[in-house]
Amino acid sequence: METLPMSMDRDSLIQLLSEIDTVLLDCDGVLWQGAQGMDVIPRSREALERLKQMGKRVFLITNNSTKTQDHYFAKCRQLGFNVEKDHILSSPYIAAQYLKEIGFDKKAYIIGSPGLAEEIQKVGITTIGTGPETIEGPLYNAVVEGKLGLDPGVGAVVVGFDRDFNYDKLLRATCYLKDPDCLFIATNTDEKYIVQGTNYHLPAAGIIVNAIEAASERPARVMGKPSLNIFHMLQARFNLQPEKTLLFGDTLHTDILFGNESGMWSILVLSGVSTLMEARELPQDPQKQKQLPLFYLQSLGDILTLMDEQVNGGVNEQQN
Amino acid sequence: METLPMSMDRDSLIQLLSEIDTVLLDCDGVLWQGAQGMDVIPRSREALERLKQMGKRVFLITNNSTKTQDHYFAKCRQLGFNVEKDHILSSPYIAAQYLKEIGFDKKAYIIGSPGLAEEIQKVGITTIGTGPETIEGPLYNAVVEGKLGLDPGVGAVVVGFDRDFNYDKLLRATCYLKDPDCLFIATNTDEKYIVQGTNYHLPAAGIIVNAIEAASERPARVMGKPSLNIFHMLQARFNLQPEKTLLFGDTLHTDILFGNESGMWSILVLSGVSTLMEARELPQDPQKQKQLPLFYLQSLGDILTLMDEQVNGGVNEQQN
Repeated sequence: METLPMSMDRDSLIQLLSEIDTVLLDCDGVLWQGAQGMDVIPRSREALERLKQMGKRVFLITNNSTKTQDHYFAKCRQLGFNVEKDHILSSPYIAAQYLKEIGFDKKAYIIGSPGLAEEIQKVGITTIGTGPETIEGPLYNAVVEGKLGLDPGVGAVVVGFDRDFNYDKLLRATCYLKDPDCLFIATNTDEKYIVQGTNYHLPAAGIIVNAIEAASERPARVMGKPSLNIFHMLQARFNLQPEKTLLFGDTLHTDILFGNESGMWSILVLSGVSTLMEARELPQDPQKQKQLPLFYLQSLGDILTLMDEQVNGGVNEQQN
Repeated sequence: METLPMSMDRDSLIQLLSEIDTVLLDCDGVLWQGAQGMDVIPRSREALERLKQMGKRVFLITNNSTKTQDHYFAKCRQLGFNVEKDHILSSPYIAAQYLKEIGFDKKAYIIGSPGLAEEIQKVGITTIGTGPETIEGPLYNAVVEGKLGLDPGVGAVVVGFDRDFNYDKLLRATCYLKDPDCLFIATNTDEKYIVQGTNYHLPAAGIIVNAIEAASERPARVMGKPSLNIFHMLQARFNLQPEKTLLFGDTLHTDILFGNESGMWSILVLSGVSTLMEARELPQDPQKQKQLPLFYLQSLGDILTLMDEQVNGGVNEQQN
């Protein structure tokens, strides 16, 4: 018996594509990669185009917490990915929409990028906290004397990747979260960004989220994958049906877990974070079996190869 | 049956004191407290003096990662606690002694206070990293181009409480720790400092240690309580025998766990971090039963009350 996940073959792909009407694509590691995320992964553009030609609805869903929907839309146009703006859902966008939907009307303390703050501001919420922050003088005294510079209008702490994250921000977030009515929102819990071509990685938003969770002794409400917020939003807005949806992702513990938990079909592509070895080791760990994709592909573009094989097969049959 | 821990009574104390020759005292929350740790807890000085008069060896053991042995010795003299300098063991001192004992001869990258660096330097090790640190420009590019400012002479990352902790330090530590030969030392894993008189607390060294552990995907070797490093050091240097040692501590998951794991007697004092309610809830959690002290006291000074009760009792008996 072959070990899961299986290398995807032509028949399985054709079968799957005939049953689904919607495709969800992760971005970094699936469509593009590299320092600025400007290196298009070969044939990902053409694969996306082919899916659209087949009548599939295509959504981009990304945990990247630093960019707005507008940033992504501009980037897609620049790189030649033809996707409607409202079909692009990033974790800051989901966080902003969530706050809007629950009628949040206080200020948000942002530990995150200007992009995260911008997206939150777009739904009419005032944000504070982005950029370097420092509390003057000894901290213990600042706490005792109420000189932490806390804003009494804050009703939510929203956390994503923050290059300016430091101890003083950690302390302020911890103090805001002491109030049980203060919301605690995290964009995503990814723990590392792969730095292509090096042995190193960048600690990602999940490290910062974990630190604030530990310091505040509270769990964050996570917006990105694998949380199902984004799934519920897609269901409500676009009538997405999980059994008719196929997800392509490069990360087992976010993308594939999200797909499986939502009841979607999911395919791991090996052009990003997770390796085939990691996927093959999953069945041994009962905690991780929900991260197991049925199939894998080297990259999204391989669906073209598989589909073209079928066409050739058809031609050969006609010739015989 | 009374729920553990039990309020300590006169007979138990007298019995216990007759069996032990050594007393370990935690400092903050047992001897003193407050913003600068300069508020002596009532009668703690007299209690320590009485223990010494009874011929007990007294050691101060503290997880505080910001002060050197010299700092503590000066503070004890200032506050009137009469303890020999080499009987004061703080987590930076233990870290420094550990590195000395294993013959460590590279540089140490310190995420911690000047006090931690000073203690490490005292055993002849060069330290870098204390104070504010910033990596210029976009981080992804800095990693790709090898411009993180990493020092190839570094052979250990030593982590304690660091007011200057920030993302760039987290990244540098993560990169150093990518080398499996680089040691990873943590002073302590306390997660909060109580700020007396407020609803708030300061995130402590453990939050920083956890973040670096998560980012580097490596566990730190912890020097302070509840790790047994300090116990082994006391055994080797002072022939400390756990069954003849009594520990007073205010924190269940560091002090009391350390005492129990070492096979010592331990008493929880309620003048610091842990509450009686927390102690009473421990038996319900199998994971936490090793944090359960046999007895509790409101504060260290209560041993005087108990001992004086006995004297009065004796006087009364003589009078009768």
